[in-house]
Amino acid sequence: MGLEGLKLLAEAREQTGLLVVTEVMSPDRVPLVSTYADILQIGARNMQNYDLLHAVGRSQRPVMLKRGMMSTMEELLMSAEYILSHGNDRIMLCERGIRTFETYTRNTLDINAVPMLKKLSHLPVVVDPSHGTGKWDLVAPVARAAVAAGADGVIVEVHPRPEEALSDGGQSLKPDTFAALMVQLRAIAQAVGRTL
Amino acid sequence: MGLEGLKLLAEAREQTGLLVVTEVMSPDRVPLVSTYADILQIGARNMQNYDLLHAVGRSQRPVMLKRGMMSTMEELLMSAEYILSHGNDRIMLCERGIRTFETYTRNTLDINAVPMLKKLSHLPVVVDPSHGTGKWDLVAPVARAAVAAGADGVIVEVHPRPEEALSDGGQSLKPDTFAALMVQLRAIAQAVGRTL
Amino acid sequence: MGLEGLKLLAEAREQTGLLVVTEVMSPDRVPLVSTYADILQIGARNMQNYDLLHAVGRSQRPVMLKRGMMSTMEELLMSAEYILSHGNDRIMLCERGIRTFETYTRNTLDINAVPMLKKLSHLPVVVDPSHGTGKWDLVAPVARAAVAAGADGVIVEVHPRPEEALSDGGQSLKPDTFAALMVQLRAIAQAVGRTL
Amino acid sequence: MGLEGLKLLAEAREQTGLLVVTEVMSPDRVPLVSTYADILQIGARNMQNYDLLHAVGRSQRPVMLKRGMMSTMEELLMSAEYILSHGNDRIMLCERGIRTFETYTRNTLDINAVPMLKKLSHLPVVVDPSHGTGKWDLVAPVARAAVAAGADGVIVEVHPRPEEALSDGGQSLKPDTFAALMVQLRAIAQAVGRTL
Repeated sequence: MGLEGLKLLAEAREQTGLLVVTEVMSPDRVPLVSTYADILQIGARNMQNYDLLHAVGRSQRPVMLKRGMMSTMEELLMSAEYILSHGNDRIMLCERGIRTFETYTRNTLDINAVPMLKKLSHLPVVVDPSHGTGKWDLVAPVARAAVAAGADGVIVEVHPRPEEALSDGGQSLKPDTFAALMVQLRAIAQAVGRTL
Repeated sequence: MGLEGLKLLAEAREQTGLLVVTEVMSPDRVPLVSTYADILQIGARNMQNYDLLHAVGRSQRPVMLKRGMMSTMEELLMSAEYILSHGNDRIMLCERGIRTFETYTRNTLDINAVPMLKKLSHLPVVVDPSHGTGKWDLVAPVARAAVAAGADGVIVEVHPRPEEALSDGGQSLKPDTFAALMVQLRAIAQAVGRTL
Repeated sequence: MGLEGLKLLAEAREQTGLLVVTEVMSPDRVPLVSTYADILQIGARNMQNYDLLHAVGRSQRPVMLKRGMMSTMEELLMSAEYILSHGNDRIMLCERGIRTFETYTRNTLDINAVPMLKKLSHLPVVVDPSHGTGKWDLVAPVARAAVAAGADGVIVEVHPRPEEALSDGGQSLKPDTFAALMVQLRAIAQAVGRTL
Repeated sequence: MGLEGLKLLAEAREQTGLLVVTEVMSPDRVPLVSTYADILQIGARNMQNYDLLHAVGRSQRPVMLKRGMMSTMEELLMSAEYILSHGNDRIMLCERGIRTFETYTRNTLDINAVPMLKKLSHLPVVVDPSHGTGKWDLVAPVARAAVAAGADGVIVEVHPRPEEALSDGGQSLKPDTFAALMVQLRAIAQAVGRTL
């Protein structure tokens, strides 16, 4: 994302009060992106980009660390260690689906990873059902599953006109479907003794 | 399971009022097992045992068809077709975990399969978090996820003394943990507009 | 395979002097098939059919044991142990491809398994490039690779008119292509210090 | 690799007449590495690092493009297209093993990929049996398999004292084992109508 994009995100934050999380893709971009974003995201393809992990570790910014689609939970936790080694412990682990032999869905969301990662670490676990399924009509049920399994958050792609989206339109919810999902997630969170 | 085992199951049914579901492993055993069991289970390893699928199809008994750990959803639905071809449509599809590169868990439970199979067929979908995780302390969160994702049932292994179980002790719940789980599942079912 | 089929195989043996290897799919068929076949084949789907493994073990017939498409080498060797436990050590292990995320080929032939299985056991290792690739034009190069890696044999599907084959036509060689392959395999065998 | 390392490689080239191939890991390093290396290697983890692909494409240097361990052949060919789009068609595709459920070997070398990639493109295909197996005693048989399957080259790790290697010692050959392997590869190349 270029400087213009970052400025737009910052403006959106100002107008809405929402925090900004955005991906940083190379170590030398960390200072700039840190100026505009509240949370630095490490994408699945960069989960083992060690220079980048060190850079976001040094930045002391909160980090959203996405599991690689080819990575084990052990490798995800080892990547988190690189960030932790700089004293930066504000890390969220994100399960976003792994690659398997199944072809009906884009990835196979590893729901086991939610309780397993929480058992193995004290870090919050976030689930991305948009990438984890690749199909917009599976997003809501899998998001509900994530909260029921104990996830601390979900990332859901939303677009006002998915059919015109530049990318990932097929896995994006429309705003009203998203709003309906949030009502369901609130009910499930309550059912498992949590609040949203 | 031998004749003695089947008689014990039938006795348990009489005393408790519970239905009996048990696995049948070869076509020539279908008539005998059908005498004692309410539901015939096809195990994951037999999902593509076509002689057996035809035999349970002809039996007209309800069938619990488990997905093979190496089988796609498409193959699971094709196996169901073999049973359906005899006019037997009382089939439950069971997701019980697939084999992936991940090694922290015995299998990777494919939570995407719950909404996907329900979208592709009208058959009920059941989830087995005991085999799907292989770890007793992951069973409850993944069972909750299954119900939240829309599963029509869950299969949970329970044993009064798991450490003495002849098999699968490591993935079995104790009765009181199971009872607590049922309370949670009821709450989640309600949250997604269903009843237990 | 029914009795008629077995009789035809026996007749083919008589006319050609070739040995007969054919699959046996249930324990109660072992005695009959043993009467007609020189080698009993356990198909990939039956690799963990323990009743069948015991039955072919007791038969004392040579066994071709095919690796399941989602089975580890460790599981293949454990299945061989079932047969060995009856004192039947005439077992050939057969690598025929495993299921992976790759979709351009029907299976991924695990060439590493050839030297690895030979290192872990004293059993001959055979490779099936027809199932291992699923494409007739990949069969010859992968058969050559198998011999170069140390395989003790290859299984190659041949059909005079592949386009009319009842099954697996797409992975079958025509007789003249097969003959040309045999010339190549002989040269490679010699290059690695073996004879055909 | 730092500047000192690159200078050492260049010196080794001068003394031995061997070409230098070394990995480049970020777009801004491409000019420097191009000064010292004859061939730029894109590592498996960077196979979908599009900025890097564009940079090596623009460099007009020969490129060794390694397949990601969880990447399909289709994705490998698409990555090659990024380089080709700059008119740089001196690309070698390298199969170095994919991740599967098998645990006895570090990766599963996809031997099918050799003939399949050659069928789908006109690019040379190189095989890396060191990473593809992860075990030094499997390297020679799998290297032989690669040449027999039609590979245009192999990458083999060699170290005078593997037990002291800083990395990958367990998959490295000693010089004399490597020399013996080269004799075998020459014989196999000849057997399949090629010369080394």
